[in-house]
Amino acid sequence: MTKALAIDVGGTKIYCAIINENGEIISEIEKYPTPKTFSEIKQTFENIIKKHEDNVDIIAFSTCGAVNNQNSGIVGSTGNIAKEYPRMNFASLTTKPVFIENDANCAAWAEYKIGASKNTSVSVMVTLGTGVGGGIIINNQILKGQNGAAGEMHFKMYSDKRRKCTCGSWDCFEIYASGTGLKITAEEMLNNKNITTYDVINGVKQNDNKYIEVFNSWQNDIINGLIGLANLFDPDCIVLSGSLAEFVNTETIEQAVNSEIVTTPTKVYKATAGNYAGMIGAALLAFEKGGI
Amino acid sequence: MTKALAIDVGGTKIYCAIINENGEIISEIEKYPTPKTFSEIKQTFENIIKKHEDNVDIIAFSTCGAVNNQNSGIVGSTGNIAKEYPRMNFASLTTKPVFIENDANCAAWAEYKIGASKNTSVSVMVTLGTGVGGGIIINNQILKGQNGAAGEMHFKMYSDKRRKCTCGSWDCFEIYASGTGLKITAEEMLNNKNITTYDVINGVKQNDNKYIEVFNSWQNDIINGLIGLANLFDPDCIVLSGSLAEFVNTETIEQAVNSEIVTTPTKVYKATAGNYAGMIGAALLAFEKGGI
Repeated sequence: MTKALAIDVGGTKIYCAIINENGEIISEIEKYPTPKTFSEIKQTFENIIKKHEDNVDIIAFSTCGAVNNQNSGIVGSTGNIAKEYPRMNFASLTTKPVFIENDANCAAWAEYKIGASKNTSVSVMVTLGTGVGGGIIINNQILKGQNGAAGEMHFKMYSDKRRKCTCGSWDCFEIYASGTGLKITAEEMLNNKNITTYDVINGVKQNDNKYIEVFNSWQNDIINGLIGLANLFDPDCIVLSGSLAEFVNTETIEQAVNSEIVTTPTKVYKATAGNYAGMIGAALLAFEKGGI
Repeated sequence: MTKALAIDVGGTKIYCAIINENGEIISEIEKYPTPKTFSEIKQTFENIIKKHEDNVDIIAFSTCGAVNNQNSGIVGSTGNIAKEYPRMNFASLTTKPVFIENDANCAAWAEYKIGASKNTSVSVMVTLGTGVGGGIIINNQILKGQNGAAGEMHFKMYSDKRRKCTCGSWDCFEIYASGTGLKITAEEMLNNKNITTYDVINGVKQNDNKYIEVFNSWQNDIINGLIGLANLFDPDCIVLSGSLAEFVNTETIEQAVNSEIVTTPTKVYKATAGNYAGMIGAALLAFEKGGI
Protein backbone atom coordinates (compact mmCIF):
# COMPACT_ATOMS: atom_id res chain seq x y z
CA MET A 1 0.00 0.00 0.00
CA THR A 2 1.25 3.51 -0.85
CA LYS A 3 2.50 5.49 2.13
CA ALA A 4 3.23 9.18 2.73
CA LEU A 5 5.46 10.92 5.20
CA ALA A 6 3.18 13.75 6.33
CA ILE A 7 4.76 16.85 7.90
CA ASP A 8 2.59 19.46 9.58
CA VAL A 9 4.27 22.87 9.86
CA GLY A 10 2.77 25.38 12.28
CA GLY A 11 4.12 28.54 13.85
CA THR A 12 5.06 26.78 17.10
CA LYS A 13 5.19 23.03 16.36
CA ILE A 14 6.18 20.68 13.56
CA TYR A 15 4.60 17.22 13.57
CA CYS A 16 5.28 14.23 11.36
CA ALA A 17 3.85 10.76 10.84
CA ILE A 18 3.55 8.08 8.19
CA ILE A 19 0.04 7.75 6.74
CA ASN A 20 -1.47 5.12 4.46
CA GLU A 21 -4.01 5.40 1.64
CA ASN A 22 -6.91 4.96 4.06
CA GLY A 23 -5.78 8.05 5.95
CA GLU A 24 -4.59 5.93 8.87
CA ILE A 25 -1.56 7.01 10.89
CA ILE A 26 0.74 3.95 10.91
CA SER A 27 3.74 5.32 12.80
CA GLU A 28 4.55 7.15 15.98
CA ILE A 29 3.69 10.84 15.78
CA GLU A 30 6.84 12.92 16.21
CA LYS A 31 6.72 16.48 17.50
CA TYR A 32 9.35 19.23 17.25
CA PRO A 33 9.31 22.90 18.26
CA THR A 34 9.29 25.12 15.16
CA PRO A 35 12.77 26.69 15.04
CA LYS A 36 13.12 30.44 14.78
CA THR A 37 15.31 30.67 11.67
CA PHE A 38 14.86 29.58 8.08
CA SER A 39 18.00 27.40 8.10
CA GLU A 40 16.98 25.61 11.29
CA ILE A 41 13.52 24.91 9.88
CA LYS A 42 15.12 23.53 6.73
CA GLN A 43 17.45 21.39 8.86
CA THR A 44 14.48 20.02 10.81
CA PHE A 45 12.72 19.10 7.55
CA GLU A 46 15.89 17.42 6.26
CA ASN A 47 16.33 15.42 9.48
CA ILE A 48 12.71 14.24 9.45
CA ILE A 49 12.87 13.32 5.78
CA LYS A 50 16.22 11.52 6.05
CA LYS A 51 14.86 9.43 8.88
CA HIS A 52 11.69 8.29 7.07
CA GLU A 53 11.95 8.74 3.33
CA ASP A 54 13.05 5.22 2.53
CA ASN A 55 9.82 3.91 4.02
CA VAL A 56 7.42 6.10 2.03
CA ASP A 57 6.42 6.95 -1.55
CA ILE A 58 5.77 10.68 -1.18
CA ILE A 59 6.41 13.54 1.24
CA ALA A 60 3.24 15.54 2.04
CA PHE A 61 3.47 18.92 3.76
CA SER A 62 0.52 20.51 5.56
CA THR A 63 1.80 24.01 6.21
CA CYS A 64 0.84 27.42 7.52
CA GLY A 65 0.68 30.01 4.74
CA ALA A 66 -1.04 30.04 1.36
CA VAL A 67 0.29 27.42 -1.07
CA ASN A 68 0.45 27.95 -4.81
CA ASN A 69 -1.79 26.14 -7.31
CA GLN A 70 1.08 23.86 -8.34
CA ASN A 71 1.31 22.63 -4.72
CA SER A 72 5.04 23.30 -4.85
CA GLY A 73 5.61 26.32 -2.61
CA ILE A 74 4.28 29.10 -0.45
CA VAL A 75 2.57 32.22 -1.80
CA GLY A 76 3.21 35.47 0.02
CA SER A 77 4.07 35.70 3.68
CA THR A 78 2.88 33.91 6.80
CA GLY A 79 2.44 35.61 10.13
CA ASN A 80 4.13 33.62 12.82
CA ILE A 81 7.08 31.76 11.28
CA ALA A 82 10.53 32.84 10.00
CA LYS A 83 9.90 35.52 7.39
CA GLU A 84 12.05 33.73 4.77
CA TYR A 85 9.97 30.53 5.14
CA PRO A 86 7.89 31.24 1.99
CA ARG A 87 11.13 30.91 -0.02
CA MET A 88 11.59 27.27 1.08
CA ASN A 89 12.43 25.03 -1.91
CA PHE A 90 10.51 21.97 -0.79
CA ALA A 91 11.40 19.86 -3.83
CA SER A 92 15.12 20.19 -3.06
CA LEU A 93 14.72 18.53 0.35
CA THR A 94 14.46 15.00 -1.06
CA THR A 95 14.55 12.90 -4.22
CA LYS A 96 11.05 11.59 -3.44
CA PRO A 97 7.97 13.37 -4.84
CA VAL A 98 6.85 16.25 -2.63
CA PHE A 99 3.34 17.67 -2.24
CA ILE A 100 2.49 20.86 -0.33
CA GLU A 101 -0.87 22.31 0.72
CA ASN A 102 -2.12 24.86 3.23
CA ASP A 103 -2.94 23.30 6.62
CA ALA A 104 -6.57 24.47 6.73
CA ASN A 105 -7.13 23.12 3.22
CA CYS A 106 -5.53 19.81 4.23
CA ALA A 107 -7.76 19.54 7.30
CA ALA A 108 -10.85 20.35 5.20
CA TRP A 109 -9.81 17.62 2.76
CA ALA A 110 -9.45 15.09 5.59
CA GLU A 111 -12.97 15.95 6.78
CA TYR A 112 -14.23 15.56 3.23
CA LYS A 113 -12.52 12.21 2.66
CA ILE A 114 -12.90 10.48 6.03
CA GLY A 115 -14.65 12.93 8.37
CA ALA A 116 -17.69 15.12 8.92
CA SER A 117 -18.18 16.34 5.33
CA LYS A 118 -17.73 12.94 3.66
CA ASN A 119 -19.83 12.50 0.51
CA THR A 120 -20.84 16.16 0.25
CA SER A 121 -20.53 18.25 -2.91
CA VAL A 122 -19.90 21.62 -1.27
CA SER A 123 -18.48 22.06 2.23
CA VAL A 124 -17.03 24.95 4.18
CA MET A 125 -14.66 24.18 7.04
CA VAL A 126 -14.01 26.88 9.63
CA THR A 127 -11.23 26.29 12.15
CA LEU A 128 -11.79 28.07 15.46
CA GLY A 129 -8.40 28.27 17.13
CA THR A 130 -6.12 31.11 18.19
CA GLY A 131 -7.02 32.48 14.75
CA VAL A 132 -9.64 31.32 12.25
CA GLY A 133 -8.77 29.12 9.28
CA GLY A 134 -10.88 28.21 6.30
CA GLY A 135 -11.01 25.41 3.75
CA ILE A 136 -13.71 25.26 1.11
CA ILE A 137 -14.36 22.22 -1.07
CA ILE A 138 -16.48 22.48 -4.19
CA ASN A 139 -17.20 19.46 -6.36
CA ASN A 140 -14.14 17.50 -5.27
CA GLN A 141 -11.78 20.47 -5.55
CA ILE A 142 -10.31 22.72 -2.90
CA LEU A 143 -11.20 26.36 -3.63
CA LYS A 144 -7.74 27.82 -4.31
CA GLY A 145 -8.36 31.04 -6.21
CA GLN A 146 -6.09 32.63 -8.81
CA ASN A 147 -2.90 32.05 -6.79
CA GLY A 148 -3.81 29.57 -4.06
CA ALA A 149 -4.72 32.08 -1.36
CA ALA A 150 -8.53 31.63 -1.28
CA GLY A 151 -10.54 30.59 1.79
CA GLU A 152 -9.29 33.36 4.06
CA MET A 153 -11.88 34.11 6.72
CA HIS A 154 -11.31 37.85 6.59
CA PHE A 155 -14.68 39.33 5.75
CA LYS A 156 -16.06 42.16 7.85
CA MET A 157 -18.44 41.78 10.79
CA TYR A 158 -18.69 45.55 11.16
CA SER A 159 -17.86 48.39 8.78
CA ASP A 160 -17.05 51.07 11.34
CA LYS A 161 -13.57 50.04 12.56
CA ARG A 162 -14.14 48.58 15.99
CA ARG A 163 -11.48 45.89 16.27
CA LYS A 164 -8.14 45.83 14.50
CA CYS A 165 -7.59 42.39 12.98
CA THR A 166 -4.28 40.51 13.04
CA CYS A 167 -4.25 40.92 9.24
CA GLY A 168 -3.96 44.71 9.54
CA SER A 169 -7.51 45.39 8.41
CA TRP A 170 -10.54 45.94 10.65
CA ASP A 171 -13.36 43.82 12.04
CA CYS A 172 -12.67 40.61 10.13
CA PHE A 173 -14.55 37.42 11.05
CA GLU A 174 -11.22 36.11 12.37
CA ILE A 175 -10.91 38.76 15.09
CA TYR A 176 -14.42 37.96 16.37
CA ALA A 177 -14.77 34.17 15.91
CA SER A 178 -11.26 33.18 17.02
CA GLY A 179 -9.97 32.45 20.53
CA THR A 180 -8.42 35.90 20.39
CA GLY A 181 -11.88 37.22 19.50
CA LEU A 182 -13.44 35.42 22.45
CA LYS A 183 -10.87 37.01 24.77
CA ILE A 184 -11.55 40.49 23.33
CA THR A 185 -15.32 40.00 23.64
CA ALA A 186 -14.81 38.99 27.28
CA GLU A 187 -12.57 42.00 27.93
CA GLU A 188 -15.14 44.32 26.40
CA MET A 189 -18.21 42.85 28.08
CA LEU A 190 -16.65 42.33 31.53
CA ASN A 191 -14.43 45.39 31.42
CA ASN A 192 -11.43 43.33 32.51
CA LYS A 193 -8.18 43.23 30.54
CA ASN A 194 -6.76 40.22 32.37
CA ILE A 195 -9.40 37.73 31.39
CA THR A 196 -8.38 34.69 29.33
CA THR A 197 -10.17 32.42 26.88
CA TYR A 198 -9.73 29.70 29.48
CA ASP A 199 -11.55 31.81 32.10
CA VAL A 200 -14.55 32.09 29.80
CA ILE A 201 -14.68 28.39 28.90
CA ASN A 202 -14.23 27.46 32.55
CA GLY A 203 -16.88 29.96 33.64
CA VAL A 204 -19.38 28.53 31.15
CA LYS A 205 -18.70 25.01 32.49
CA GLN A 206 -19.48 26.31 35.98
CA ASN A 207 -22.74 27.89 34.79
CA ASP A 208 -21.55 31.41 35.56
CA ASN A 209 -24.04 33.71 33.82
CA LYS A 210 -21.60 36.49 33.01
CA TYR A 211 -19.34 34.04 31.17
CA ILE A 212 -22.31 32.40 29.47
CA GLU A 213 -23.31 35.82 28.12
CA VAL A 214 -19.80 36.40 26.79
CA PHE A 215 -19.72 32.96 25.20
CA ASN A 216 -23.13 33.42 23.59
CA SER A 217 -22.09 36.79 22.18
CA TRP A 218 -19.00 35.15 20.67
CA GLN A 219 -21.08 32.26 19.30
CA ASN A 220 -23.50 34.78 17.84
CA ASP A 221 -20.62 36.39 15.94
CA ILE A 222 -19.82 32.95 14.55
CA ILE A 223 -23.46 32.55 13.50
CA ASN A 224 -23.43 35.94 11.76
CA GLY A 225 -20.32 34.98 9.80
CA LEU A 226 -21.64 31.56 8.83
CA ILE A 227 -24.85 33.16 7.47
CA GLY A 228 -22.74 34.99 4.90
CA LEU A 229 -20.75 31.86 4.01
CA ALA A 230 -23.95 29.83 3.62
CA ASN A 231 -25.47 32.46 1.30
CA LEU A 232 -22.31 32.63 -0.80
CA PHE A 233 -21.59 28.90 -1.10
CA ASP A 234 -24.98 27.13 -0.55
CA PRO A 235 -22.98 24.35 1.12
CA ASP A 236 -24.22 20.88 2.10
CA CYS A 237 -22.51 21.48 5.41
CA ILE A 238 -20.30 23.74 7.47
CA VAL A 239 -17.69 21.90 9.55
CA LEU A 240 -16.34 23.56 12.69
CA SER A 241 -12.90 22.40 13.75
CA GLY A 242 -10.10 23.66 15.96
CA SER A 243 -9.63 23.78 19.70
CA LEU A 244 -12.68 25.97 20.37
CA ALA A 245 -15.11 23.99 18.21
CA GLU A 246 -15.71 21.48 20.96
CA PHE A 247 -17.42 24.13 23.08
CA VAL A 248 -19.93 25.52 20.57
CA ASN A 249 -23.50 24.29 20.22
CA THR A 250 -23.86 23.13 16.61
CA GLU A 251 -27.63 22.65 16.94
CA THR A 252 -28.11 26.26 18.03
CA ILE A 253 -25.78 27.48 15.30
CA GLU A 254 -27.40 25.39 12.56
CA GLN A 255 -30.89 26.52 13.49
CA ALA A 256 -29.88 30.19 13.70
CA VAL A 257 -28.00 30.11 10.38
CA ASN A 258 -30.83 28.35 8.54
CA SER A 259 -33.39 30.83 9.90
CA GLU A 260 -31.61 33.74 8.17
CA ILE A 261 -30.30 32.45 4.83
CA VAL A 262 -31.84 32.80 1.38
CA THR A 263 -30.12 29.67 0.08
CA THR A 264 -31.11 26.09 0.93
CA PRO A 265 -30.73 24.72 4.50
CA THR A 266 -27.25 23.63 5.49
CA LYS A 267 -25.91 21.34 8.20
CA VAL A 268 -23.43 22.41 10.87
CA TYR A 269 -21.12 19.69 12.15
CA LYS A 270 -18.10 19.41 14.39
CA ALA A 271 -14.99 18.02 12.73
CA THR A 272 -14.38 14.30 13.26
CA ALA A 273 -11.05 13.65 11.54
CA GLY A 274 -9.13 14.41 14.73
CA ASN A 275 -6.19 16.52 15.80
CA TYR A 276 -3.98 15.32 12.97
CA ALA A 277 -6.46 16.07 10.19
CA GLY A 278 -3.89 18.37 8.56
CA MET A 279 -1.37 15.56 8.11
CA ILE A 280 -4.06 13.09 7.05
CA GLY A 281 -5.47 15.50 4.47
CA ALA A 282 -1.99 16.31 3.13
CA ALA A 283 -1.28 12.60 2.66
CA LEU A 284 -4.65 11.88 1.00
CA LEU A 285 -4.22 14.87 -1.34
CA ALA A 286 -0.66 13.80 -2.16
CA PHE A 287 -1.85 10.29 -3.09
CA GLU A 288 -4.53 11.77 -5.33
CA LYS A 289 -2.58 14.57 -6.98
CA GLY A 290 0.99 13.26 -6.92
CA GLY A 291 4.06 15.28 -6.07
CA ILE A 292 6.52 17.55 -7.76
CA MET B 1 -24.30 28.04 -36.96
CA THR B 2 -26.20 26.94 -33.87
CA LYS B 3 -28.70 29.47 -32.56
CA ALA B 4 -30.55 29.92 -29.28
CA LEU B 5 -33.75 31.72 -28.43
CA ALA B 6 -32.75 33.51 -25.24
CA ILE B 7 -35.48 34.64 -22.84
CA ASP B 8 -34.66 36.92 -19.92
CA VAL B 9 -37.24 36.80 -17.14
CA GLY B 10 -37.22 39.61 -14.59
CA GLY B 11 -39.76 40.79 -12.06
CA THR B 12 -40.97 43.60 -14.30
CA LYS B 13 -39.86 42.77 -17.87
CA ILE B 14 -39.37 39.76 -20.11
CA TYR B 15 -36.94 40.14 -23.01
CA CYS B 16 -36.15 37.75 -25.84
CA ALA B 17 -33.71 37.58 -28.74
CA ILE B 18 -31.98 35.06 -30.98
CA ILE B 19 -28.27 34.64 -30.23
CA ASN B 20 -25.54 32.81 -32.13
CA GLU B 21 -22.53 30.84 -30.89
CA ASN B 22 -20.39 33.96 -30.79
CA GLY B 23 -22.77 35.54 -28.32
CA GLU B 24 -24.06 37.94 -30.97
CA ILE B 25 -27.69 39.05 -30.92
CA ILE B 26 -28.96 38.34 -34.45
CA SER B 27 -32.61 39.35 -34.14
CA GLU B 28 -34.72 42.21 -32.89
CA ILE B 29 -34.90 42.35 -29.12
CA GLU B 30 -38.50 41.94 -27.98
CA LYS B 31 -39.72 43.27 -24.66
CA TYR B 32 -42.87 42.38 -22.70
CA PRO B 33 -44.11 43.42 -19.28
CA THR B 34 -43.91 40.50 -16.84
CA PRO B 35 -47.51 39.46 -16.22
CA LYS B 36 -48.83 39.21 -12.68
CA THR B 37 -50.09 35.62 -12.74
CA PHE B 38 -48.41 32.27 -13.31
CA SER B 39 -50.72 31.34 -16.20
CA GLU B 40 -50.12 34.65 -17.99
CA ILE B 41 -46.34 34.26 -17.60
CA LYS B 42 -46.60 30.75 -19.02
CA GLN B 43 -48.72 32.09 -21.90
CA THR B 44 -46.11 34.78 -22.63
CA PHE B 45 -43.37 32.11 -22.72
CA GLU B 46 -45.50 29.94 -25.05
CA ASN B 47 -46.19 32.85 -27.40
CA ILE B 48 -42.51 33.82 -27.58
CA ILE B 49 -41.40 30.23 -28.13
CA LYS B 50 -44.07 29.50 -30.74
CA LYS B 51 -42.98 32.56 -32.71
CA HIS B 52 -39.26 31.71 -32.79
CA GLU B 53 -38.62 28.04 -32.02
CA ASP B 54 -38.47 26.88 -35.63
CA ASN B 55 -35.51 29.20 -36.20
CA VAL B 56 -33.37 28.01 -33.26
CA ASP B 57 -31.76 24.88 -31.83
CA ILE B 58 -32.29 25.50 -28.13
CA ILE B 59 -34.32 27.70 -25.78
CA ALA B 60 -32.16 29.42 -23.11
CA PHE B 61 -33.78 31.09 -20.11
CA SER B 62 -31.98 33.68 -17.99
CA THR B 63 -34.33 34.02 -15.04
CA CYS B 64 -34.74 35.62 -11.64
CA GLY B 65 -34.58 33.06 -8.84
CA ALA B 66 -32.12 30.31 -8.01
CA VAL B 67 -31.98 27.56 -10.64
CA ASN B 68 -31.29 23.91 -9.80
CA ASN B 69 -28.06 22.11 -10.68
CA GLN B 70 -29.78 20.27 -13.52
CA ASN B 71 -30.61 23.64 -15.14
CA SER B 72 -34.21 22.48 -15.46
CA GLY B 73 -36.17 24.54 -12.94
CA ILE B 74 -36.29 27.05 -10.12
CA VAL B 75 -35.23 26.30 -6.55
CA GLY B 76 -37.23 27.94 -3.75
CA SER B 77 -39.04 31.24 -4.13
CA THR B 78 -38.25 34.52 -5.86
CA GLY B 79 -39.19 37.89 -4.44
CA ASN B 80 -40.92 39.91 -7.08
CA ILE B 81 -42.71 37.58 -9.49
CA ALA B 82 -45.85 35.41 -9.23
CA LYS B 83 -45.35 33.14 -6.23
CA GLU B 84 -46.13 29.98 -8.25
CA TYR B 85 -43.42 30.85 -10.80
CA PRO B 86 -40.86 28.45 -9.26
CA ARG B 87 -43.22 25.60 -10.22
CA MET B 88 -42.91 26.43 -13.95
CA ASN B 89 -42.28 23.27 -16.02
CA PHE B 90 -39.93 24.82 -18.56
CA ALA B 91 -39.36 21.61 -20.53
CA SER B 92 -43.09 21.30 -21.26
CA LEU B 93 -43.14 24.65 -23.09
CA THR B 94 -41.55 23.28 -26.26
CA THR B 95 -40.23 20.18 -27.97
CA LYS B 96 -36.83 21.87 -28.39
CA PRO B 97 -34.12 21.44 -25.74
CA VAL B 98 -34.48 23.95 -22.91
CA PHE B 99 -31.74 25.35 -20.66
CA ILE B 100 -32.35 27.49 -17.58
CA GLU B 101 -29.93 29.46 -15.41
CA ASN B 102 -30.15 32.28 -12.90
CA ASP B 103 -29.85 35.73 -14.50
CA ALA B 104 -26.85 36.88 -12.46
CA ASN B 105 -25.03 33.63 -13.23
CA CYS B 106 -25.85 34.09 -16.93
CA ALA B 107 -24.53 37.65 -16.92
CA ALA B 108 -21.35 36.52 -15.13
CA TRP B 109 -20.89 33.82 -17.76
CA ALA B 110 -21.26 36.38 -20.57
CA GLU B 111 -18.57 38.54 -18.94
CA TYR B 112 -16.36 35.46 -18.63
CA LYS B 113 -16.86 34.37 -22.23
CA ILE B 114 -16.91 37.66 -24.13
CA GLY B 115 -16.58 40.46 -21.56
CA ALA B 116 -14.54 41.90 -18.71
CA SER B 117 -13.49 38.61 -17.06
CA LYS B 118 -12.53 36.80 -20.27
CA ASN B 119 -9.63 34.36 -19.81
CA THR B 120 -9.65 34.47 -16.01
CA SER B 121 -9.71 31.41 -13.78
CA VAL B 122 -11.65 32.89 -10.87
CA SER B 123 -14.01 35.85 -11.17
CA VAL B 124 -16.67 37.39 -8.99
CA MET B 125 -19.40 39.45 -10.62
CA VAL B 126 -21.45 41.81 -8.47
CA THR B 127 -24.51 43.43 -10.02
CA LEU B 128 -25.36 46.80 -8.50
CA GLY B 129 -29.00 47.46 -9.37
CA THR B 130 -32.17 47.91 -7.34
CA GLY B 131 -30.82 44.89 -5.47
CA VAL B 132 -27.42 43.21 -5.64
CA GLY B 133 -26.83 40.07 -7.67
CA GLY B 134 -23.84 37.78 -7.70
CA GLY B 135 -22.26 35.31 -10.09
CA ILE B 136 -19.02 33.52 -9.25
CA ILE B 137 -17.01 31.55 -11.77
CA ILE B 138 -14.28 29.15 -10.65
CA ASN B 139 -12.20 27.20 -13.13
CA ASN B 140 -14.75 27.34 -15.95
CA GLN B 141 -17.69 26.45 -13.69
CA ILE B 142 -20.39 28.66 -12.17
CA LEU B 143 -20.41 28.30 -8.38
CA LYS B 144 -23.82 26.71 -7.83
CA GLY B 145 -23.66 25.12 -4.37
CA GLN B 146 -25.51 22.03 -3.19
CA ASN B 147 -28.83 23.06 -4.77
CA GLY B 148 -28.02 25.87 -7.18
CA ALA B 149 -28.58 28.78 -4.82
CA ALA B 150 -24.95 29.92 -4.26
CA GLY B 151 -23.63 33.38 -5.04
CA GLU B 152 -26.16 35.28 -2.94
CA MET B 153 -24.68 38.59 -1.80
CA HIS B 154 -26.22 38.39 1.65
CA PHE B 155 -23.31 38.56 4.03
CA LYS B 156 -23.39 41.02 6.91
CA MET B 157 -21.86 44.50 6.88
CA TYR B 158 -22.77 45.03 10.54
CA SER B 159 -23.72 42.58 13.26
CA ASP B 160 -25.91 44.86 15.36
CA LYS B 161 -29.14 45.04 13.34
CA ARG B 162 -29.10 48.46 11.73
CA ARG B 163 -30.88 47.92 8.43
CA LYS B 164 -33.48 45.29 7.67
CA CYS B 165 -32.62 43.60 4.39
CA THR B 166 -35.16 42.67 1.71
CA CYS B 167 -34.30 39.02 2.47
CA GLY B 168 -35.72 39.31 5.99
CA SER B 169 -32.33 39.26 7.70
CA TRP B 170 -30.29 42.27 8.79
CA ASP B 171 -27.43 44.33 7.36
CA CYS B 172 -26.67 42.24 4.30
CA PHE B 173 -24.28 43.58 1.63
CA GLU B 174 -27.33 43.89 -0.64
CA ILE B 175 -29.09 46.46 1.57
CA TYR B 176 -25.94 48.65 1.58
CA ALA B 177 -24.46 48.22 -1.91
CA SER B 178 -27.71 48.28 -3.91
CA GLY B 179 -29.61 51.26 -5.29
CA THR B 180 -31.98 50.78 -2.37
CA GLY B 181 -28.93 50.93 -0.11
CA LEU B 182 -27.75 54.16 -1.72
CA LYS B 183 -31.19 55.70 -1.09
CA ILE B 184 -31.17 54.58 2.57
CA THR B 185 -27.62 55.92 3.05
CA ALA B 186 -28.76 59.25 1.58
CA GLU B 187 -31.85 59.32 3.80
CA GLU B 188 -29.74 58.63 6.88
CA MET B 189 -26.93 61.06 6.10
CA LEU B 190 -29.12 63.91 4.86
CA ASN B 191 -32.00 63.26 7.22
CA ASN B 192 -34.48 63.44 4.36
CA LYS B 193 -36.93 60.63 3.60
CA ASN B 194 -37.87 61.91 0.14
CA ILE B 195 -34.47 61.66 -1.45
CA THR B 196 -34.02 59.32 -4.43
CA THR B 197 -31.09 57.42 -5.90
CA TYR B 198 -31.43 59.73 -8.89
CA ASP B 199 -31.03 62.80 -6.65
CA VAL B 200 -27.73 61.43 -5.35
CA ILE B 201 -26.35 60.53 -8.78
CA ASN B 202 -27.45 63.88 -10.16
CA GLY B 203 -25.98 65.74 -7.17
CA VAL B 204 -22.63 64.00 -7.66
CA LYS B 205 -22.63 65.02 -11.31
CA GLN B 206 -23.17 68.62 -10.22
CA ASN B 207 -20.30 68.40 -7.73
CA ASP B 208 -22.60 68.91 -4.73
CA ASN B 209 -20.48 68.00 -1.70
CA LYS B 210 -23.29 66.60 0.41
CA TYR B 211 -24.21 64.15 -2.36
CA ILE B 212 -20.56 63.31 -2.97
CA GLU B 213 -20.25 62.36 0.71
CA VAL B 214 -23.30 60.12 0.47
CA PHE B 215 -21.99 58.49 -2.70
CA ASN B 216 -18.55 57.90 -1.18
CA SER B 217 -20.07 56.36 1.91
CA TRP B 218 -22.06 54.00 -0.32
CA GLN B 219 -18.98 53.21 -2.42
CA ASN B 220 -17.07 52.53 0.78
CA ASP B 221 -19.67 49.95 1.76
CA ILE B 222 -19.08 48.31 -1.61
CA ILE B 223 -15.33 48.31 -0.93
CA ASN B 224 -15.86 46.71 2.50
CA GLY B 225 -17.94 43.95 0.96
CA LEU B 226 -15.50 43.30 -1.89
CA ILE B 227 -12.63 42.93 0.62
CA GLY B 228 -14.43 39.92 2.09
CA LEU B 229 -15.14 38.44 -1.34
CA ALA B 230 -11.50 38.89 -2.42
CA ASN B 231 -10.24 37.17 0.74
CA LEU B 232 -12.65 34.27 0.28
CA PHE B 233 -12.17 33.70 -3.46
CA ASP B 234 -8.70 35.12 -4.33
CA PRO B 235 -10.20 36.11 -7.70
CA ASP B 236 -8.35 37.32 -10.79
CA CYS B 237 -10.97 40.03 -10.99
CA ILE B 238 -14.19 41.43 -9.61
CA VAL B 239 -16.63 42.65 -12.25
CA LEU B 240 -19.16 45.32 -11.35
CA SER B 241 -22.30 45.33 -13.46
CA GLY B 242 -25.81 46.71 -13.23
CA SER B 243 -27.27 50.16 -13.62
CA LEU B 244 -25.24 51.72 -10.78
CA ALA B 245 -21.87 50.28 -11.81
CA GLU B 246 -21.34 53.04 -14.36
CA PHE B 247 -21.06 55.63 -11.57
CA VAL B 248 -18.49 53.93 -9.33
CA ASN B 249 -14.76 54.57 -9.52
CA THR B 250 -13.15 51.18 -10.16
CA GLU B 251 -9.61 52.53 -9.67
CA THR B 252 -10.47 53.82 -6.19
CA ILE B 253 -12.25 50.57 -5.37
CA GLU B 254 -9.43 48.35 -6.68
CA GLN B 255 -6.78 50.26 -4.75
CA ALA B 256 -8.81 50.25 -1.52
CA VAL B 257 -9.63 46.54 -1.77
CA ASN B 258 -6.05 45.53 -2.51
CA SER B 259 -4.75 47.60 0.40
CA GLU B 260 -6.76 45.51 2.89
CA ILE B 261 -6.72 41.91 1.64
CA VAL B 262 -4.49 39.03 2.74
CA THR B 263 -4.85 37.24 -0.60
CA THR B 264 -3.17 38.26 -3.86
CA PRO B 265 -4.06 41.53 -5.62
CA THR B 266 -7.23 41.48 -7.67
CA LYS B 267 -8.53 43.66 -10.51
CA VAL B 268 -11.82 45.54 -10.40
CA TYR B 269 -13.52 46.07 -13.76
CA LYS B 270 -16.81 47.35 -15.03
CA ALA B 271 -18.86 44.86 -17.02
CA THR B 272 -18.52 45.11 -20.80
CA ALA B 273 -20.96 42.50 -22.13
CA GLY B 274 -23.78 45.04 -22.21
CA ASN B 275 -27.37 45.30 -21.06
CA TYR B 276 -28.32 41.94 -22.53
CA ALA B 277 -25.51 39.98 -20.87
CA GLY B 278 -28.09 37.75 -19.19
CA MET B 279 -29.52 36.55 -22.50
CA ILE B 280 -26.06 36.22 -24.06
CA GLY B 281 -24.76 34.20 -21.11
CA ALA B 282 -27.83 31.95 -21.11
CA ALA B 283 -27.33 31.23 -24.81
CA LEU B 284 -23.59 30.55 -24.45
CA LEU B 285 -24.20 28.26 -21.47
CA ALA B 286 -26.97 26.45 -23.35
CA PHE B 287 -24.64 25.81 -26.30
CA GLU B 288 -22.00 24.44 -23.96
CA LYS B 289 -24.15 22.38 -21.61
CA GLY B 290 -27.11 21.40 -23.81
CA GLY B 291 -30.72 21.42 -22.75
CA ILE B 292 -33.19 19.13 -21.06
